[in-house]
Amino acid sequence: MKKTDLLTPIGIFIGLTAMLMAVFTNTAGDGQLTDFIQITSILIVLGGLSAAIMINFSLTDLKLLPKVIKETFQTRTHNLQDLIDTFVDLSTKARREGLLALEAGLEDVEDPFIEKGVLLAVDGIEPDVIKDIMMAEVVAMEERHRKGRVILEKAAEYAPAWGMIGTLVGLVLMLQNLNDPSTLGPNMAVALLTTLYGSLLANLVFSPMSHKLMLSTEDEVFVKQIIIEGVIGVQSGQNPKVLQEKLSAFLPNHTKQDEEAKQSEEEVVNE
Amino acid sequence: MKKTDLLTPIGIFIGLTAMLMAVFTNTAGDGQLTDFIQITSILIVLGGLSAAIMINFSLTDLKLLPKVIKETFQTRTHNLQDLIDTFVDLSTKARREGLLALEAGLEDVEDPFIEKGVLLAVDGIEPDVIKDIMMAEVVAMEERHRKGRVILEKAAEYAPAWGMIGTLVGLVLMLQNLNDPSTLGPNMAVALLTTLYGSLLANLVFSPMSHKLMLSTEDEVFVKQIIIEGVIGVQSGQNPKVLQEKLSAFLPNHTKQDEEAKQSEEEVVNE
Amino acid sequence: MKKTDLLTPIGIFIGLTAMLMAVFTNTAGDGQLTDFIQITSILIVLGGLSAAIMINFSLTDLKLLPKVIKETFQTRTHNLQDLIDTFVDLSTKARREGLLALEAGLEDVEDPFIEKGVLLAVDGIEPDVIKDIMMAEVVAMEERHRKGRVILEKAAEYAPAWGMIGTLVGLVLMLQNLNDPSTLGPNMAVALLTTLYGSLLANLVFSPMSHKLMLSTEDEVFVKQIIIEGVIGVQSGQNPKVLQEKLSAFLPNHTKQDEEAKQSEEEVVNE
Amino acid sequence: MKKTDLLTPIGIFIGLTAMLMAVFTNTAGDGQLTDFIQITSILIVLGGLSAAIMINFSLTDLKLLPKVIKETFQTRTHNLQDLIDTFVDLSTKARREGLLALEAGLEDVEDPFIEKGVLLAVDGIEPDVIKDIMMAEVVAMEERHRKGRVILEKAAEYAPAWGMIGTLVGLVLMLQNLNDPSTLGPNMAVALLTTLYGSLLANLVFSPMSHKLMLSTEDEVFVKQIIIEGVIGVQSGQNPKVLQEKLSAFLPNHTKQDEEAKQSEEEVVNE
Amino acid sequence: MKKTDLLTPIGIFIGLTAMLMAVFTNTAGDGQLTDFIQITSILIVLGGLSAAIMINFSLTDLKLLPKVIKETFQTRTHNLQDLIDTFVDLSTKARREGLLALEAGLEDVEDPFIEKGVLLAVDGIEPDVIKDIMMAEVVAMEERHRKGRVILEKAAEYAPAWGMIGTLVGLVLMLQNLNDPSTLGPNMAVALLTTLYGSLLANLVFSPMSHKLMLSTEDEVFVKQIIIEGVIGVQSGQNPKVLQEKLSAFLPNHTKQDEEAKQSEEEVVNE
Repeated sequence: MKKTDLLTPIGIFIGLTAMLMAVFTNTAGDGQLTDFIQITSILIVLGGLSAAIMINFSLTDLKLLPKVIKETFQTRTHNLQDLIDTFVDLSTKARREGLLALEAGLEDVEDPFIEKGVLLAVDGIEPDVIKDIMMAEVVAMEERHRKGRVILEKAAEYAPAWGMIGTLVGLVLMLQNLNDPSTLGPNMAVALLTTLYGSLLANLVFSPMSHKLMLSTEDEVFVKQIIIEGVIGVQSGQNPKVLQEKLSAFLPNHTKQDEEAKQSEEEVVNE
Repeated sequence: MKKTDLLTPIGIFIGLTAMLMAVFTNTAGDGQLTDFIQITSILIVLGGLSAAIMINFSLTDLKLLPKVIKETFQTRTHNLQDLIDTFVDLSTKARREGLLALEAGLEDVEDPFIEKGVLLAVDGIEPDVIKDIMMAEVVAMEERHRKGRVILEKAAEYAPAWGMIGTLVGLVLMLQNLNDPSTLGPNMAVALLTTLYGSLLANLVFSPMSHKLMLSTEDEVFVKQIIIEGVIGVQSGQNPKVLQEKLSAFLPNHTKQDEEAKQSEEEVVNE
Repeated sequence: MKKTDLLTPIGIFIGLTAMLMAVFTNTAGDGQLTDFIQITSILIVLGGLSAAIMINFSLTDLKLLPKVIKETFQTRTHNLQDLIDTFVDLSTKARREGLLALEAGLEDVEDPFIEKGVLLAVDGIEPDVIKDIMMAEVVAMEERHRKGRVILEKAAEYAPAWGMIGTLVGLVLMLQNLNDPSTLGPNMAVALLTTLYGSLLANLVFSPMSHKLMLSTEDEVFVKQIIIEGVIGVQSGQNPKVLQEKLSAFLPNHTKQDEEAKQSEEEVVNE
Repeated sequence: MKKTDLLTPIGIFIGLTAMLMAVFTNTAGDGQLTDFIQITSILIVLGGLSAAIMINFSLTDLKLLPKVIKETFQTRTHNLQDLIDTFVDLSTKARREGLLALEAGLEDVEDPFIEKGVLLAVDGIEPDVIKDIMMAEVVAMEERHRKGRVILEKAAEYAPAWGMIGTLVGLVLMLQNLNDPSTLGPNMAVALLTTLYGSLLANLVFSPMSHKLMLSTEDEVFVKQIIIEGVIGVQSGQNPKVLQEKLSAFLPNHTKQDEEAKQSEEEVVNE
Repeated sequence: MKKTDLLTPIGIFIGLTAMLMAVFTNTAGDGQLTDFIQITSILIVLGGLSAAIMINFSLTDLKLLPKVIKETFQTRTHNLQDLIDTFVDLSTKARREGLLALEAGLEDVEDPFIEKGVLLAVDGIEPDVIKDIMMAEVVAMEERHRKGRVILEKAAEYAPAWGMIGTLVGLVLMLQNLNDPSTLGPNMAVALLTTLYGSLLANLVFSPMSHKLMLSTEDEVFVKQIIIEGVIGVQSGQNPKVLQEKLSAFLPNHTKQDEEAKQSEEEVVNE
């Protein structure tokens, strides 16, 4: 289930607030926000970054970007115990009434990946082929996510580099015009701003976002692997108790304890 | 199908434009383009970079360079759905009329890799050998692309290093001749220019280009793997519907939905 | 067995003491501790670091943090020789009295992982399935530990980056207000403090802690792999002497010599 | 076939020429070559580098160094088409006259690795064992090359580090003796020279050379793998045409087209 | 056979000598050794480094350190040809007199790993189990060495980081006390000393030592793999000539030629 992930906007807000407070409470001078906003510096960092990204990726890849950024503001929750229960139920039903009976009960299953797997099993396709088809889908999903993520990863790489390029441009200009020493400080400050912009983009936006996407892809692959194990178990007519044991091994410990409590109740019911 | 990829020249144009605008709108002084063009600095960065690349690679490898650079200005589009349809058709035909019948229909197939695979199947060579031969070709292609790409990767590594070497040369000369303080600034500016050149070459040209090539190689390997799966499926007389299911698992989701709509129509036609 | 690991608090204490002594014995001036405490700098490093971490991880992951930090103050000791003896005993018993007899003796076994494995064996589940179930649990544990550890790893990455961002903010402010040269030094000192804070957090806290967790996970995985080997050996009715030889191969040399001495005694007893 | 590789000396010459031209055309001052030669700096970079390398490697490894450096001035050319033709001929002969007949024709074969493989086949050793023996030799060669190469890789790592150490020594000495401001510039220039030396050694010599060796090892492994495939194909009595198809898959595309032209002629001759 | 490796102490001596000569021959000023010895700087680098290492590792790991350091002053020489001869002899004997006869000849074998392998073979344990047991021992050894080596690797990582922390502390103190400009130089020199110490420790001691240990572990694993191949060959009654061919494939080329000369003599003797 997808939910809006408030952590991302809150994190960006906290990061910018920390910056602002640092500006206003700094002892070095009367910090003014305008000292930190410099159109030329923004232009060179964003322009150079966009240029590098455009050369780096194809149009097809870049079209993934809005979806990828949206994804970083969302979180997915997976109820693994429900998932395991679903497969234990399917397995019990399949052993009592046969694989074909599973088709009828699929309306209750929300996840299209489970549905697809069970339908393949009902169609009588061999376990190896089912596993191949389902794994190919997981690999394709992983690949798709990776492609979008790599754009952010590369942005996190190019942003500080272009920040430094901007600072070099500023320094060269400053050093060529040393006539008025009073402008030395402000000019150097402006030159340093591009490095600051590049670092901020990399360490507040691109790098954390790209890593968040990696973690959420890992989570999804993990869930899909449990589903594949479950579908194969159901089709091969595995004992529901063994299947439960096998799938529960994937769960973190604390969930397992709840599940063991529940399982002992179920054993009363099932036997 | 190869197409000119406008993103690469547009990206380079945007990167240079951002640089120019930064020079002209900078508050540090009257930016002049000539301040940023310095023959000595260009000489040491390009000379050192070429030297390192020449030592690093053999002549055979370096001859790949023009082709490699040309490739970064091109993009390849693959219609995966068409590809899958081709194999479903071939598979249907092979089951009805036998593998030998496939040879006749090969004129419609444009891709020489598909043609080769089908011809091997028609020749009655075993699936494992076909897979070995076709995979060897994919690996050889990957290797060939990698060799060309590595030249750009190494250039992205050596360019900033030689930029720094040039700056060190400039600093040493400047520090040895401190008699006239008025030349200090401009001399230091000139010294910094080599670092700027090295960074620009790495972050606007070599690094994005080498990564673009990696992505396009990945795409091509991906397409060729679908083709291998398809050829093996056709030869082993796999059910066209199962083959379609298997190959469709490689597609991204949105394409899959279109394909499912299409598939339901086809089921009416085929049965 | 978990024990408090005094090395972590002692290490932090030594690190801070070295810092303090460096401050007080430094020849550069009358070092004062207050010169090194700067609210603004602390604010920007901790604020920025928290911001990056919040964007990087989901709430579920971040909830692991207190447990993860607590773990770095603990150490686990494993008596591998005892572990091997346990399996030799179980194996001897299984060969004499049958696998079912093992259930009775399980009260003496403290480790729930051994207990689970033996119970699976007693239940008559096949060796391959047992190995799959137990390995899935090890992989899930490894994954869980990794998730917590990655938070510290990322913190070690973001801390110096935000230290540098804070220094850049300080430098920009300082350079914009060069009117009073006497404030130049102290303002630059304050600007450098954020870099110092970031480096200290990374090199005294986050990096060593995250690596300690990796080592302790490796240790635990190693012990659990010996247990899996042992359970499979017991179930497949392997000769106790061969099993001992097999498991002892995992031990470091010096332990092995003690074990050989012990083994020769046992051979007298066993035969 | 080994040939002198002129690219390496030409590359070093170009790199040094670029340096010299940068010195003489620099606008910063009257560049003099003597400004860039500093015995103390050379001493600390070379001394420290040698020290680190001596600690890093054993005497056995270091004895590989002269051979390794010599290798970077050589290039090997492989005629892959000739290689494939050799195996097609051997295969045709083996099928007509039996494996034993191959021993007679081995005089024409120059490559000792092919000779060894064919002799093993003639001796009637099983294909798996032949493959094991030949692969072990390839792995041993790869390992041997890697050992030599790692010395250059480590040198590329230590050279800039010792350059920086030398600069730090120079800076400390300079800062301790600030009495005469007129020496500040030249002394700092001298201090920077060690960094320059370290960077030059790494980016003009060690890093490109070590990478060149890696590429040439990869080439040799590639050729040896084709040979192993060929020997196994000959021994197992594979159809010469299939063998040709299999080995040709390793070739780059353009060579393949020539070979296809040639193959069609051969088909006339062979059938 | 272990021998004292003089290269390590000689290397450290050369490194320090290069440093000293750089100090005394430097043109920047009257270099004095006392300018480079600064208790505060030593304290913060060693203190911080120890602190990070203590947090990073458990007491069990740290106890490996003295043994690990001692190992870097030792070198092991392996006579691979002797090793192969041993197995050819054992193989010949086993084929003539049976596996049991091998036990008698084991007194001549010095290597306990060979002895163990042969004893397992004599005990009639299956080849797969022998391979498992012996490989487990190799993996355990590799793991043990790795654990010790990682301490040095981490030290090489933390040393420059703490050097920089010390320099930051020095710079902050210096900048807070700018009243007397004459102390600026010496104070900055002292601040830079910690960076120098950290770099020296990393690039003269920790990094080369940890890499030397990795190379020596690789060597040992390599020898043990030949032994495992040999034991399996002896047990499975492989032809001594084939076994020799198989094991010789691991040798470097030049040794192989000597061995071929020797082999032809042996063939006269053996047949």
